[in-house]
Amino acid sequence: MSKIVIVGGGFGGLMTAKALKGANDEIVIIDKTNYHLFQPLLYQVATAALSPGDIALPIRAVFSKFTNIKVILDEVVSINRTERKVILRDGEIGFDYLVISIGSRHSYFGNDKWEANAPGLKTLGDALLIRERILMSLEKAEKEDDPVKRKKYLTFVIIGGGPTGVEMAGAIAEIAKRTLMRDFRNFKPSDTNIYLIEAMPMLLNNYPQELSVKAQNDLAGMGVELKLNTKVTDVNSNGVETDKGLFETKNIIWAAGNSVSPLLGSLDIKLDRAGRVYVKKDMSIEGDPNIFVIGDAALFFDEKGKQLPGVAPVAIQQGRYVGKIIKNKTVPQNRKSFHYVDKGNLATIGRAKAVADIHGLKLSGFIAWVAWCFIHIFFLIGFRNRFRVMGEWGWYYITFKHGIRLIVGKDDDDLK
Amino acid sequence: MSKIVIVGGGFGGLMTAKALKGANDEIVIIDKTNYHLFQPLLYQVATAALSPGDIALPIRAVFSKFTNIKVILDEVVSINRTERKVILRDGEIGFDYLVISIGSRHSYFGNDKWEANAPGLKTLGDALLIRERILMSLEKAEKEDDPVKRKKYLTFVIIGGGPTGVEMAGAIAEIAKRTLMRDFRNFKPSDTNIYLIEAMPMLLNNYPQELSVKAQNDLAGMGVELKLNTKVTDVNSNGVETDKGLFETKNIIWAAGNSVSPLLGSLDIKLDRAGRVYVKKDMSIEGDPNIFVIGDAALFFDEKGKQLPGVAPVAIQQGRYVGKIIKNKTVPQNRKSFHYVDKGNLATIGRAKAVADIHGLKLSGFIAWVAWCFIHIFFLIGFRNRFRVMGEWGWYYITFKHGIRLIVGKDDDDLK
Repeated sequence: MSKIVIVGGGFGGLMTAKALKGANDEIVIIDKTNYHLFQPLLYQVATAALSPGDIALPIRAVFSKFTNIKVILDEVVSINRTERKVILRDGEIGFDYLVISIGSRHSYFGNDKWEANAPGLKTLGDALLIRERILMSLEKAEKEDDPVKRKKYLTFVIIGGGPTGVEMAGAIAEIAKRTLMRDFRNFKPSDTNIYLIEAMPMLLNNYPQELSVKAQNDLAGMGVELKLNTKVTDVNSNGVETDKGLFETKNIIWAAGNSVSPLLGSLDIKLDRAGRVYVKKDMSIEGDPNIFVIGDAALFFDEKGKQLPGVAPVAIQQGRYVGKIIKNKTVPQNRKSFHYVDKGNLATIGRAKAVADIHGLKLSGFIAWVAWCFIHIFFLIGFRNRFRVMGEWGWYYITFKHGIRLIVGKDDDDLK
Repeated sequence: MSKIVIVGGGFGGLMTAKALKGANDEIVIIDKTNYHLFQPLLYQVATAALSPGDIALPIRAVFSKFTNIKVILDEVVSINRTERKVILRDGEIGFDYLVISIGSRHSYFGNDKWEANAPGLKTLGDALLIRERILMSLEKAEKEDDPVKRKKYLTFVIIGGGPTGVEMAGAIAEIAKRTLMRDFRNFKPSDTNIYLIEAMPMLLNNYPQELSVKAQNDLAGMGVELKLNTKVTDVNSNGVETDKGLFETKNIIWAAGNSVSPLLGSLDIKLDRAGRVYVKKDMSIEGDPNIFVIGDAALFFDEKGKQLPGVAPVAIQQGRYVGKIIKNKTVPQNRKSFHYVDKGNLATIGRAKAVADIHGLKLSGFIAWVAWCFIHIFFLIGFRNRFRVMGEWGWYYITFKHGIRLIVGKDDDDLK
C-alpha cells in the first residue's frame, strides 16, 4: 500500500484520482479551495450568465464513494523531495508518489501593479470580482449625468486575443449592446465601447487562419472594436496605455499571460520562464520517477517537438495517464511515452456564434455553437451541474436575459 | 405628474412599484443592493441548498418594461422632510410622495460586539458568510486530529427559536447528521452537536401551541438539542455563555432580534425601541400624509390592537395598499384603513417536515412541507428562479445532496 499525494483538484488532479479507482493505496488530494472548477465556463460566471454553483463542485463530493481518498483543504507551501513530504500551511503529509497539478495564474510580464486595475480570470473569486466591477460600472453610468465621465464607465477593454479574451469580449458585447437596452434609462447601447487589444496581428493564434478571421468578423459584427498589432505599455486607474494611444476606461480585463505558482521552485529542478517544469516523456521530473507534474504546470513537447498548450484536454489526458502508471506501479523503463490526442479547438463568440476546429473539420456559426454547447455540457463534472447549465443556456437563448446579475461584494467602496 | 420615491427594493418596495403600473408619474426606486431578495429562502443559501442567484433578481430587471420607473443603486443617508428630498451618499432626489420600505437588520440588544462571532441572517452577504463559516469549520474538523479541539468545530449553536432559528437548526442538522457521512473521513455524524437556544419556554411563539410542540419533536428527532428557558449572557470566541452554562463552539448563528436602520431617525417622529415608526391607519406618518412607512420598518396595530409581525405577507399587502393610494392620489380623508389579511404561518423544519397554520387549518409533516414548497415557489419573483428552485428541491429530495457547498471567500484567515 503506497501513499499517493495529489496536489490540485483541477482537471489533472481529478482525473489522476479517478484513474486510481480501485487501487489498494492511500490517496490524499490537497487543494486550497474546496471545489473543482470547470474553468472553460468561468467567463460565463464573470459575465453573469452562470452561477458559481453551476460550474463548481466540492472535491469531496466527487469522491464521496472512493473511501480510500481523503480530501484536504489547505495550501502547499513547499515540497521536500529528500524527506518525501509536502509541507502545508497547516501541517505536512508524506508521500511515495506525488502528482503536481496546480494549474497556472495569469501573469503581467513583470508588471504586477497592473493587476489592481486589470484583474485576470482564473478562479471563482476572480470571476465574481469581474462580474461585480462590470455591473457596478453600469450602475455608476446610470447615475452619472456628465457624458464625459459616463463614457469611462461604459468603456470595456479586454487585453489578450486568445480564447478567454475572445469569449469575454463577445459576452460583454452581448450584455452592453443588447440586454442593457431594456434595463437602463440613462444611456443607450450605442454609448458603450468594447475594445479587444492584441499585440499580434491576429486573434486566436492557435487556430486555423480562416477561423481566426471568422471570429474577428463575428466580434466586429457584435460591436467589438478590435485593436490588433497593439502593444500595452501601461495599465492604471485612467485606463490602458498602448503604442497606439490611451483607452480611457474603468473596466479592464486581463487575458494575456500565464505563469505557474512559485511552489515549483522548491522542487529544485529546471523551470522555464513561466515557472513550468520540463517533464520527461512519462510526465515525471528529472531524476525522480515517482514525482509527476501535469497540466498547465508542465512543459511537455510532443513527438513533433511541439509544446502542448495549457488547455483542459491536455491536463485530463495527462491525469489519466499518470493515474494508470501509479495504479499499476509501472517502473520507469516500462512506461510508454505520454501521447496527446488533439481533438481540436473550440471557442464561443456569442449567442449562436462560435468557431471550432474538430479533427481538422472547421466549423463556425450556429453549428459550431451547438457543438461547443454539447461538448461543454458533456465534460462538465456532475449530473446536476449539467442539468443546471443546460437550463440556463436554454433560458438565455430564448429570452436574451442574463440571470445572475448580482452585486454582493461587501466592499464599501463599491457604493462610492 | 408627481415624483414618487420608493426607498428599498424588498417586498414592500417592489409591490408598491408594481401597484403603480400605468400611473402617469415619475417613479424612482433606491436600494443599496442591485437585487430584490426573496428573504424567506435566505437560510437555504446559508446552508448551501440554493445559490444566491436562485433567490435574487436584479431590481432593474423586474422593471425593465416599466419605462416610468428608474432604479438607482445607492444608500439613503437621511430624509429632509422640509425640502422634500432624500439625501443619498452620492447625490439627492426630490419627491412628492415617499415610501420607506427599508426592512430590518438583526439586533444584539445593545451587545453589538457579539456580531463578530454570531452573524445574523438578513442579506445575501450574511448568508454567504454563514455558509463559508459552516463549510470551513467542517474542513478544519477533517484536518484536526485532537478530538477535543475537533469538537468545537463540530458544534453549532443557533440563538433564537423563531422561524429563522428553527429553519436554520433543521437545515444544519440535515447537513451535519446526514450528508456528512459520505464526504468526511475524520469524524462521524454522531460527533456533531446542534444546539438551539431560546429564552422563552417554547419555540415558534407566534404559532398555535400544538404546532410548536410538533416542531420541537421534529427537531429533536433530527438530532437538534433544544435549550429552552435559556438566556444568553455573552457571546465570544470560546462560544456562547448562558445562565445554564457555556456552549463551546466556533459556529454561532444569531436569529434572535431585529431593529431598523437609524435612517428613520431623520424623519424626526416617534419611534419604538427597535427603531420602528408608529404609522397611522393609512401607513402614512404623523403629520405627513404623503410619506409612508411599510413592512418591517413600520409599527402597525390591527383592529384588535394586535401588532402586525415583521413577515413578508404584511409588507406585500402594505405595498399594494400604499401603491394604490398614490396611484389614485387619494386624499387622506378618503383613505380606508389598511387591513391585513392573515393567511397563516409556515415554517419548514427539514426534508419532508414542516408546520403550517393556514386559516386556522393546522398541518404538519409531509403535507405541510409540500404546502410550504408550493407557496414559496408561487411567491418567488421571476419565472426563471421558480424553475431553478424547484429543480434544486427535487434534486435534493431524491439525492439528499446539498449542491452549493462552495468556499469562495478571499479572506486568507480562512486557511489558518
